[in-house]
Amino acid sequence: MTIASTAVHYCGLETMLHMTCCCQSQEEITGHLRKAKQLGLKNILALRGDPLGDHWEEEEGGFHYAVDLVKHIRKEFGDYFDICVAGYPAGHPDAESFAADLKYLKEKVLAGADFIITQLFFEADTFFRFLKACSEIGITCPILPGIFPIQLVKLSKLEVPQRIKDVIEPIKGDDEAICNYGIELAVGLCRELLASGLVPGLHFYTLNRRMATTEVLKRLGMWAEGPRRPLPWAVSAHPKRWEESVRPIFWASRPKSYIYRTQEWDEFPSGRWGSSSSPAFGELKDYHLFYLRSKAPRGQLLKMWGEELTSEESVFDVFVHYLSGEPNQNGCRVTCLPWNDEPLAAETSLMKEELLRANRRGILTINSQPNVNGKPSSDPVVGWGPSGGYVFQKAYLEFFTSRKTVEALLQVLKKYESRVTYHIVDVKGENITNAPELQPNAVTWGIFPGREIIQPTVVDPVSFMFWKDEAFTLWAEQWGKLYDEESPSRMIIQDIHDNYFLINLVDNEFPLDNCLWQVVEDTFELLNRPTSQ
Amino acid sequence: MTIASTAVHYCGLETMLHMTCCCQSQEEITGHLRKAKQLGLKNILALRGDPLGDHWEEEEGGFHYAVDLVKHIRKEFGDYFDICVAGYPAGHPDAESFAADLKYLKEKVLAGADFIITQLFFEADTFFRFLKACSEIGITCPILPGIFPIQLVKLSKLEVPQRIKDVIEPIKGDDEAICNYGIELAVGLCRELLASGLVPGLHFYTLNRRMATTEVLKRLGMWAEGPRRPLPWAVSAHPKRWEESVRPIFWASRPKSYIYRTQEWDEFPSGRWGSSSSPAFGELKDYHLFYLRSKAPRGQLLKMWGEELTSEESVFDVFVHYLSGEPNQNGCRVTCLPWNDEPLAAETSLMKEELLRANRRGILTINSQPNVNGKPSSDPVVGWGPSGGYVFQKAYLEFFTSRKTVEALLQVLKKYESRVTYHIVDVKGENITNAPELQPNAVTWGIFPGREIIQPTVVDPVSFMFWKDEAFTLWAEQWGKLYDEESPSRMIIQDIHDNYFLINLVDNEFPLDNCLWQVVEDTFELLNRPTSQ
Repeated sequence: MTIASTAVHYCGLETMLHMTCCCQSQEEITGHLRKAKQLGLKNILALRGDPLGDHWEEEEGGFHYAVDLVKHIRKEFGDYFDICVAGYPAGHPDAESFAADLKYLKEKVLAGADFIITQLFFEADTFFRFLKACSEIGITCPILPGIFPIQLVKLSKLEVPQRIKDVIEPIKGDDEAICNYGIELAVGLCRELLASGLVPGLHFYTLNRRMATTEVLKRLGMWAEGPRRPLPWAVSAHPKRWEESVRPIFWASRPKSYIYRTQEWDEFPSGRWGSSSSPAFGELKDYHLFYLRSKAPRGQLLKMWGEELTSEESVFDVFVHYLSGEPNQNGCRVTCLPWNDEPLAAETSLMKEELLRANRRGILTINSQPNVNGKPSSDPVVGWGPSGGYVFQKAYLEFFTSRKTVEALLQVLKKYESRVTYHIVDVKGENITNAPELQPNAVTWGIFPGREIIQPTVVDPVSFMFWKDEAFTLWAEQWGKLYDEESPSRMIIQDIHDNYFLINLVDNEFPLDNCLWQVVEDTFELLNRPTSQ
Repeated sequence: MTIASTAVHYCGLETMLHMTCCCQSQEEITGHLRKAKQLGLKNILALRGDPLGDHWEEEEGGFHYAVDLVKHIRKEFGDYFDICVAGYPAGHPDAESFAADLKYLKEKVLAGADFIITQLFFEADTFFRFLKACSEIGITCPILPGIFPIQLVKLSKLEVPQRIKDVIEPIKGDDEAICNYGIELAVGLCRELLASGLVPGLHFYTLNRRMATTEVLKRLGMWAEGPRRPLPWAVSAHPKRWEESVRPIFWASRPKSYIYRTQEWDEFPSGRWGSSSSPAFGELKDYHLFYLRSKAPRGQLLKMWGEELTSEESVFDVFVHYLSGEPNQNGCRVTCLPWNDEPLAAETSLMKEELLRANRRGILTINSQPNVNGKPSSDPVVGWGPSGGYVFQKAYLEFFTSRKTVEALLQVLKKYESRVTYHIVDVKGENITNAPELQPNAVTWGIFPGREIIQPTVVDPVSFMFWKDEAFTLWAEQWGKLYDEESPSRMIIQDIHDNYFLINLVDNEFPLDNCLWQVVEDTFELLNRPTSQ
């Protein structure tokens, strides 16, 4: 269920849990279903399941037939789940007859199943006969044929037609030949099924092997790569999040944390973030720190982030190595930072030189995007959404820096007052901004044929204060705690945590050259200027 | 109330009704308030009112004091209204004393008044003393000073300070000199009030004259022209519509009809039109036809739209004259058409030549906009919204035309399938479209510093079907009914009503040259091409 939940939440993939009655009490089954519902999983394939031994053994207080499981799901959870049941085109091996088996299938549908997936079969006619029989006894729900591209010789339990056995026999030592034959067979079968117009889709039994199914789909012309990404961030398939189309930019590199901290929301922003709704983010609790904690072992983190820090500059150096991709003095590449779950975004490399210059001098960047003035939605680097559209971005830069740099920055920003929107906060909540009202600023949007404007990413001042807590906590919890208490390394990180500011800058003039790098240069210049003191 | 309602609904102006107790029963007052609420008016200045004769006469079953009116409004309408009451910086002439008058004022505030506007006065100190006295007896609501720039000599009832009388006396025959002096006095008074930091704003008694107040504001530097228009269409100040920021493009030239047909909505679209909500437009009822009916007298309409129509082409000619602005054969300019309440939009003139070519040949345009690819929001023709932003449009064209032209158009549109979205309907509801789903298409949008995207105009397929009914009805009701039944003119219009199509086209490629005119040219070319028949 954790795998399915991850697929749904973070990869945006629909999943269907396979649930059997084997070796479980009703209470256990209810418990599993409750957990599935809590995780946002909606689809259940309700099966009796294969017996563990040769014969089905009844479980005390459990279910003996899939129909009982279907009834139970409907009784306990109403319409929440979409339920699928198995159909046997050649009849279930344990059933008295084909007709008797069909009667059981109809019972499962009447009990509340929404659709049927069939057991695998090798001849299209087997499926067509089954469809006809289903129709005759009044089964009207969709029926998906189960397709299995033969990839192994072990077919003992299956009713394999003689013509297939005849081909396999002479090549049984040649795995590749068998696999190729399996693909060819499956392609022929699928073509026949699709041509009939009687199937609403195909269900593939992959048995955890993707190659054969991929190849079948390609040969059928059904392997169409969708748009590279529907939104700039990975959408979730969680039912509560179907409408979600706007997120603050801050969690761009920590999507799991964002999903976690918003999981209790009943509604998600669609179309616009809105100014009135003050978002209630989950607090940073102990449990949440599980998500905050990096997966890499301490030893590896120390190699990346420094066994011993001697100064703030040695921290700058870690950021520089993360951006450059060059090995550090330990010969180790810095592949992550506390604020970045994921590898550097492709578009970030468009600004690599500028980022390196900034970080070397203590502007420690954790999030950025270049401006984009109407590139095609198919653009390989910055494109997203349906084809035929145009995407736009305002340049964005988010970084930690010292109070001294902030003071110079504020001087410089006066010159950019009408162009650059900024928010500057420290860990205690000191907050300096030129945003006139607490309004979100859309920083990524797309225009598509025949659609409303999509603006998936905003800089929202209210959310920024929640993000600020997380961003500062990551210094202390993920980086500082690598070192012994009272050690100089720990104190350097703690000092940054206590005294640095977190800043975000938006250049609202998206059609012009990004001015944020000039803001950074001007700031450094001001810092270097000899003062009268 | 009708004037106030028009100001609120169609001009987007806040209003405050002045309500007195004079000569009205409680029931009559409740009736007026109920009507005000129904019209969306929210602000009431609750007054006793001046007596008609020399002394106040009690109305049977009415109120004798403003405080009774305030209590009544709060009792009957709760918090719906914002209530203002009058304050007398020099005490009310009828009151026993200044102190007694202050006590009455406090009673009015305790009864539920939200703020106070003062009677006019001439010395800032008069106001400051009043403020102090109010504060001392516990009046804490906002108090707006009432400013009256002297424009007339008749000041008999007012306590005019001697220093002012001394100036006026010698120039009393010179209206202009008095007016200039009045402006100078008011500017000085306002500066003193504003400098004190004690006033939340100013209230001007204009007495229906705008010049003096305008001049005072200009001299105070408070006459800032706002952005030319906050949205491409005139926003309404109706409280239900405060959030409204999206409308279908179809009613662009008939805003009153749009407001009328949506007046029963409880919520208005903000930020996006949304695909799920099927809008319920008020039906085209008899009452509504009042709004449909043009204000010009029949005789004038006949001169503009043709005393006698001899063919479809004579209808085309009316459209051509509306667009060209040239006088027609009656020497009359066609200043309106049934689908256009208002003069031709400035941006339409950008496409005048193309529009003329189309209409001459029977593509009868009723709505259009050019494409705009990121012009400054301050652009005098296509700009709107806050300064520092960029506005965009997709080219739009909406027209009536014959079935024959539609057939050619559909041939031509095949070539533009991926670029042009279209909806083609006739009066009976035949509906041809290439829009894959019933989704709105944003055709006007703006990007502003520090804000979410604003997309005030959409082409919404569902609303188009409601607009279609109105657009076809206008042929019959406004134009056809000018002529006698059975007359050839009437039959020509009826034939167009029955057989023409209403088409909208959107060119989704807003960064390229508008292709809709090429679509029109290609259509005419196809129609002119000799066929094999």
